[in-house]
Amino acid sequence: MLANIRVVLSSTSHPGNIGAAARAMKTMGLTRLYLVNPKVFPAAEATARASGADDVLANAVVCAEMGAALSGCNLVVGASARSRSIPCPVISPAESAHKAYSESEHGGDVAMLFGCEQSGLSNAEIDRCQYLVQIPANPDYGSLNLAAAVQIISYEILVAHGRQGKVDDGLDYVPADSDEMERFYNHLEQTLVVLDFLDPDNPRQLMRRLRRLFNRARPDENEVNILRGMLSAAQQGVKEQ
Amino acid sequence: MLANIRVVLSSTSHPGNIGAAARAMKTMGLTRLYLVNPKVFPAAEATARASGADDVLANAVVCAEMGAALSGCNLVVGASARSRSIPCPVISPAESAHKAYSESEHGGDVAMLFGCEQSGLSNAEIDRCQYLVQIPANPDYGSLNLAAAVQIISYEILVAHGRQGKVDDGLDYVPADSDEMERFYNHLEQTLVVLDFLDPDNPRQLMRRLRRLFNRARPDENEVNILRGMLSAAQQGVKEQ
Repeated sequence: MLANIRVVLSSTSHPGNIGAAARAMKTMGLTRLYLVNPKVFPAAEATARASGADDVLANAVVCAEMGAALSGCNLVVGASARSRSIPCPVISPAESAHKAYSESEHGGDVAMLFGCEQSGLSNAEIDRCQYLVQIPANPDYGSLNLAAAVQIISYEILVAHGRQGKVDDGLDYVPADSDEMERFYNHLEQTLVVLDFLDPDNPRQLMRRLRRLFNRARPDENEVNILRGMLSAAQQGVKEQ
Repeated sequence: MLANIRVVLSSTSHPGNIGAAARAMKTMGLTRLYLVNPKVFPAAEATARASGADDVLANAVVCAEMGAALSGCNLVVGASARSRSIPCPVISPAESAHKAYSESEHGGDVAMLFGCEQSGLSNAEIDRCQYLVQIPANPDYGSLNLAAAVQIISYEILVAHGRQGKVDDGLDYVPADSDEMERFYNHLEQTLVVLDFLDPDNPRQLMRRLRRLFNRARPDENEVNILRGMLSAAQQGVKEQ
């Protein structure tokens, strides 16, 4: 349940980042923002960068210390750019989202915790985490903006949310059925013979190649009708000779 | 291969977004930025927001029209916030990254195309795409910042890269590139006019629909040659009248 997942930003230096993080959260359906010791908040720059997510800012809970922000949480996942010597399991954004979302579905409260822009999470903050999530990054330039990190984690949480009981092959239309396709291929073949493009006595692999091409395209009924209209026009053109 | 993947930003209004997009790209190991008709570029605000990714900005290719930015690309994936009526397959960020990365591993050039902040991709821009990628978002607030969208797509590409070796979309051929496809569409259009199937004074959506169909099929060079052979045969048939 997205409503059980909070984003906790600790010791954020730039108010613009708070606003951009609020926007990033809201685009992905997260609304509960906690700010631990923000350097400047509220701030005009935060509101400007929130751009329509000002309700998330207005409802943000400002806390003087971490304990208050994490109070009631069953799971705390910290975002960390570097590997640490302290043993805390490091997981990917997708795994962290999966764990956070499952936990929230079971009624638990979950915190996704982000440290300050300069140095990330302190050791004391990591002590509060069950997991660290590491966003994969360019080894030579891993400098993700804070709001960009919030965006990626929030995105993965929404993806985990969307996976709930859903299988989708991404096809948003109904392709023409097999019979329609056969009628189209017959029409195509006849037309190519009329055009002297296909020699019926030596057809080679032409129809096979064209089948492969159009089978990849998976035209819908309407598109098959357009294609057959073109074939009829070509046949007509030749007949009028 | 990350070096084969370019990010194309069309008609970007705010130079700050160009800088933030460059930073987002670089954190995920992408470096090839193309700008089609940016409103203001170069700009101090772009450089400020790039924050260490100024090499990506310095190497950005500025183009006056889309064809130049997509030249040489075998796969073009457009980022779209809304569902469209004309069928162009809509895929998830993870799927788009998988396809883009596989294609790039086979030596193809790939473009991830982002429209302007206000209205996204135009229909003419979608005509150039084999796929649209839709970032899942809050149905009540889907207002992702441009750089945030670039961040998510770049992140998924780096995730796909990390999966290297386990990634294969089964594409065992090299699709014709964007330039060849444009020549084919011109030839197709001319032929349909000659056949009186397309009225140049009232073209309706015909070419757009045919583009969607053939962009899905992704013909290779040989198949484009067969199709153009058929077009020439049809034109010849009519001329002999």
